[in-house]
Amino acid sequence: MHPFDEAIALKTIADNRYSGATHSAYANMVGPFGGITSAALVNAVMLHPQRLGEPIALTVNFAGPLADGPFQIEALPMRTNRSTQHWAVTLTQENTVCATGSLVLAKRRETWSAQESVYPSDMPAADTLQRAPCDEQLAWLRCYDMRFAPGEGLTQFDGIERTCSDTRMWIRDEPPRPLDFAALAAICDSFEPSVWTRRQKFVPIGTVTLSTYFHVDAALLAETSKRHVLLNTWAHNFCNGYFDQSANVWSDLGHLLASTHQMVYYRE
Amino acid sequence: MHPFDEAIALKTIADNRYSGATHSAYANMVGPFGGITSAALVNAVMLHPQRLGEPIALTVNFAGPLADGPFQIEALPMRTNRSTQHWAVTLTQENTVCATGSLVLAKRRETWSAQESVYPSDMPAADTLQRAPCDEQLAWLRCYDMRFAPGEGLTQFDGIERTCSDTRMWIRDEPPRPLDFAALAAICDSFEPSVWTRRQKFVPIGTVTLSTYFHVDAALLAETSKRHVLLNTWAHNFCNGYFDQSANVWSDLGHLLASTHQMVYYRE
Repeated sequence: MHPFDEAIALKTIADNRYSGATHSAYANMVGPFGGITSAALVNAVMLHPQRLGEPIALTVNFAGPLADGPFQIEALPMRTNRSTQHWAVTLTQENTVCATGSLVLAKRRETWSAQESVYPSDMPAADTLQRAPCDEQLAWLRCYDMRFAPGEGLTQFDGIERTCSDTRMWIRDEPPRPLDFAALAAICDSFEPSVWTRRQKFVPIGTVTLSTYFHVDAALLAETSKRHVLLNTWAHNFCNGYFDQSANVWSDLGHLLASTHQMVYYRE
Repeated sequence: MHPFDEAIALKTIADNRYSGATHSAYANMVGPFGGITSAALVNAVMLHPQRLGEPIALTVNFAGPLADGPFQIEALPMRTNRSTQHWAVTLTQENTVCATGSLVLAKRRETWSAQESVYPSDMPAADTLQRAPCDEQLAWLRCYDMRFAPGEGLTQFDGIERTCSDTRMWIRDEPPRPLDFAALAAICDSFEPSVWTRRQKFVPIGTVTLSTYFHVDAALLAETSKRHVLLNTWAHNFCNGYFDQSANVWSDLGHLLASTHQMVYYRE
């Protein structure tokens, strides 16, 4: 079993209720990598017998740190329409709320479509770049093969502030695993925080809330298979303890797979 | 009393529960303008005796249309930390869920700050532009003074598809009203849907989920007073029934007040 699937594995314990546990492979500085928590919440809905359709939008609010150990997820179908279904999800540890969120599912129909964002085709191909070295202290980084654009990435910061925090990187699960909605949800929280890029230094950060919009169905997602996806990220504002960060996630075939946005706490 | 305040007025009916009613001034094609629903949800938390801090992030999921008439809002404090507070909000009509959402509040501290997005300073000043005529069929448009960039706006669409759906407009409440978080939340749902701009034609649309990140505190918001704010909007992708749309909201002093993102259903 792939470590990702172990980490998001859930057991049904009652109607709308699941139990799971944090996984040492996805440990972050404090508690697990936020992306794996998002993925577990997506998985709870995907496993639910009343599920109709595929994810189009996910919001996760990180209310407080998870402790290493067991957790429970409640997934409540709030409303089912003809083509959409709204879910509320809550992750608790011993009755303390650690994360809340919502997932919108939809049955898509073929319509007029257009990709307006332009694929960053000047990014060198993944196989021409080196895999970034993994920080020994952060287990979850070893679960991903990340390849930053030349001159970018978690290199030795020089502390000289930049005017732009845009980044680009290729990423895939390590070991490789076919991409699905849960894995894509996790990858949407994998990028370098804009405040580090901008300031070229580490400061304490924590994602407070994250929303991901899925632009493709499971079939198109499956075309990416186990290959890298490309993320380009940007930020709009850093103000008194909170900054926003956005990213687009692309397949190597040039399809926009997801757009993701978050509000992040920072100190100093 | 300003119609906006009438429309978001709530009465406490129990712990964590409020009653309100739709307002004819904010009627949309079907049910009320989504922005006024968001504003009522924000107001429920702002009125709550346990509230700590000011909004930094709001997500509203529009689960189904509201009927004209009374509604109830439940606002639940899910977790209170030292500097943040997480709320879950649900709007129902006769026990049917019409909207769900979450609001994150925070007490900000002064830190290193930087506005990375660049104010669209080539937009002509609001007082040099004409107020857009209001569609007689949509009451809520009369509640706003909208001034589109030259050549943009709800003009006579020619049906000739564009390659870019970016728009810019000035907007303020009509009659003028000092800007606060609830009013800003409403304005974050006021813009022309990207799919209309892109295709230069009307197709049925409906916002499914919307997330707004607030970049300023109440004091800075108050500086905007009753003047117009500037919105610039863009979209990343239109695919099989759903597109995303983002906007930045600026004060006329050049401060980025909010960033907002939504996923929108469209037909045809």
